[in-house]
Amino acid sequence: MLKRSWIESANDAEGDFPLNNLPYGVFSTAEAGPRCGVAVGDMILDLARAEKAGLTGTHGLLQAPAWNSFMAEGPQAWEALRTRLTELLAEGAEQRAAVEPLLVAMSGARMHLPIEVAEYTDFYASRQHATNVGTMFRGAENALPPNWLHIPIGYNGRASTVVVSDTEVRRPVGQTRAKHAEMPSFGPCKRLDIELEIGAIVGTPSRMGEPVTTAQAQEMIFGYVLLNDWSARDLQAWEYQPLGPFQAKAFATSISPWIVTRAALAPFAVPEPEREVPLLPYLRTDFPGNYDVDLSVEMNGHTVSRTNMQRLYYSAAQQLAHHASSGCAMRTGDLLGSGTISGDTPDACGSLLEMTWGGQTPLDLGGESRTFIQDGDILTLKGHAQGDGYRVGFGACTGRILPAPDFP
Amino acid sequence: MLKRSWIESANDAEGDFPLNNLPYGVFSTAEAGPRCGVAVGDMILDLARAEKAGLTGTHGLLQAPAWNSFMAEGPQAWEALRTRLTELLAEGAEQRAAVEPLLVAMSGARMHLPIEVAEYTDFYASRQHATNVGTMFRGAENALPPNWLHIPIGYNGRASTVVVSDTEVRRPVGQTRAKHAEMPSFGPCKRLDIELEIGAIVGTPSRMGEPVTTAQAQEMIFGYVLLNDWSARDLQAWEYQPLGPFQAKAFATSISPWIVTRAALAPFAVPEPEREVPLLPYLRTDFPGNYDVDLSVEMNGHTVSRTNMQRLYYSAAQQLAHHASSGCAMRTGDLLGSGTISGDTPDACGSLLEMTWGGQTPLDLGGESRTFIQDGDILTLKGHAQGDGYRVGFGACTGRILPAPDFP
Repeated sequence: MLKRSWIESANDAEGDFPLNNLPYGVFSTAEAGPRCGVAVGDMILDLARAEKAGLTGTHGLLQAPAWNSFMAEGPQAWEALRTRLTELLAEGAEQRAAVEPLLVAMSGARMHLPIEVAEYTDFYASRQHATNVGTMFRGAENALPPNWLHIPIGYNGRASTVVVSDTEVRRPVGQTRAKHAEMPSFGPCKRLDIELEIGAIVGTPSRMGEPVTTAQAQEMIFGYVLLNDWSARDLQAWEYQPLGPFQAKAFATSISPWIVTRAALAPFAVPEPEREVPLLPYLRTDFPGNYDVDLSVEMNGHTVSRTNMQRLYYSAAQQLAHHASSGCAMRTGDLLGSGTISGDTPDACGSLLEMTWGGQTPLDLGGESRTFIQDGDILTLKGHAQGDGYRVGFGACTGRILPAPDFP
Repeated sequence: MLKRSWIESANDAEGDFPLNNLPYGVFSTAEAGPRCGVAVGDMILDLARAEKAGLTGTHGLLQAPAWNSFMAEGPQAWEALRTRLTELLAEGAEQRAAVEPLLVAMSGARMHLPIEVAEYTDFYASRQHATNVGTMFRGAENALPPNWLHIPIGYNGRASTVVVSDTEVRRPVGQTRAKHAEMPSFGPCKRLDIELEIGAIVGTPSRMGEPVTTAQAQEMIFGYVLLNDWSARDLQAWEYQPLGPFQAKAFATSISPWIVTRAALAPFAVPEPEREVPLLPYLRTDFPGNYDVDLSVEMNGHTVSRTNMQRLYYSAAQQLAHHASSGCAMRTGDLLGSGTISGDTPDACGSLLEMTWGGQTPLDLGGESRTFIQDGDILTLKGHAQGDGYRVGFGACTGRILPAPDFP
């Protein structure tokens, strides 16, 4: 049920940011540089100033241009702040007069990366996506790798190029080899793609040499963002054997600016899909680790795909438990991409590669058609969980593609 | 020729740290916490105190427990400090009386990671290693992947578990699947291995969307360390298709504590090996980018392998230019592992996998024999460039293996 706020725009049943959500971001305005804030309706509550005014119950954790210090405090602190903010912003709140001057219109703010990304890992946890891509890259018989039903397959991505939504992205350049060609060539990517993913953000760390259970992993997760793992398919096809994707994924990864907390998503928790084969004990869960979140992809304003986070075969908690299983230390600020989320039909897939089946079936964008991305195209991911009379929304994760840079 | 120092131990023709070397590290003592220092003979010059005393020509760059701030200053600053330290420590130096009280015996110091590792990337740049491993994992016919002679193949590693030499390493646990078994199992690694590598440290950054030339890449490199990319071969074989090594490499990577600068290695520069096929223009160099550095591996005190850094088919500058080629932003503190360096014979290989040909031919360690690593074993990498009457040495990169942790 909608929790009503004295900020009227937060009571819109179609809005992304009701009081039930309270997602965390980092914003700047003409008056002051990047600092912590929380979204409520079409406003941002300036948490740096709220903390200084003694309203948040925290001390020196919300002044930095990143949520890392606060995240490192752990679940009790997360719960306390959420409770406090809910009180301050609820209809009839006693402290409205103190809070009101600390609100900033979202339309006048610029958003920044909400966290300092420690490391970025990208998983491959949607079965339909793995099957589709496997079919195209390796043939139908070898589509799903033999380990896929046992391991949440993942690889380390590049953290230095994780950028916030609205950052323009240059078309990458790189090596490709044409079919039957003897030598590769070097030039701008010709098969530039998106990947619709959810990113889980690790709040509390684990120690080197100490695996964690799925239940512990779940407690370590602070929240979620939309994530676009931009992909250069032609570079990827030529480079990825035997050590995995590298430059095909290294040029940019966009995330939405607002971290939707695990607490806000809790009412929408659902179990992972049925297992085809039993999981090894270290990956089993006794809690629902997936979420019912509707997701969509827009290309130049046209919706080209709709899917749901429930399609993930492995939850973020399972991914994280696997990530730490060898003894790998996990850090505050680690970002875990879910892998592209795809459904059963082309218009439920999370990549253009799948929607167009490798470029064979162009998309109709109201007169124009597209297979892969052209310079100037704008790609937008959206997502929300639907409650009874309210939504918990992620906002948008968007990016426009610029022409390739000059290269040596 | 040996540059003579007034520190007598620095004039030892067999020592790793003559005045010609001046490698940079981070050390602590009973008196004070981690801070910057430079190795000279068997002493460390406390650069934090030397800077405060106005001896280094730098301002506030050498106080932190990491070289990142100084590295970010770029090649002119690097050259200036090296020149200054050479003057201060040379035989007959005027300022000996001011410098002498700032020396600390190496034997009384503890070493720490010399840099804050931004991100860790591991390459695969030794042809003989790629051929050997490829033969074992994929058969002789598919040994060298088709892209290998065109691309310095690499993958992103895990930075959170890069540790300094002498840090004990827990045996990892993980998934493996026995030959012909239907289901995988989970437990301690049974084929624990090393990888003898050289790590290149990126000093100055590059910008997102802006590739760099090999000449620019060379200028960005601050220095080199020995690097042991500990590897769980049984985990790796089961997990690495299709997205590359992940938990098999994530549990630990050890580096030697002293950064041997590019300037110190300059006299030992050699060209990369002959190309079998021409490289694409963005990977070509007009400078010698490899170094003549003798390398060895010791297991429980027995030397089991000797090789040379010259075996690398791609230099660090070529790796770095490729890394930035897509538009990937490179950062101060990025660590680039060369990949295992192997020669033509088993006793010139950089991994136990190759030395024992997949565990078939045990090593003789003076009575005891080994294929892969047992709990309690100590593995040590060493390296030095041989000059005329002096050495530029890396010191040692060593680690002892502890039993596997408890796991869920």
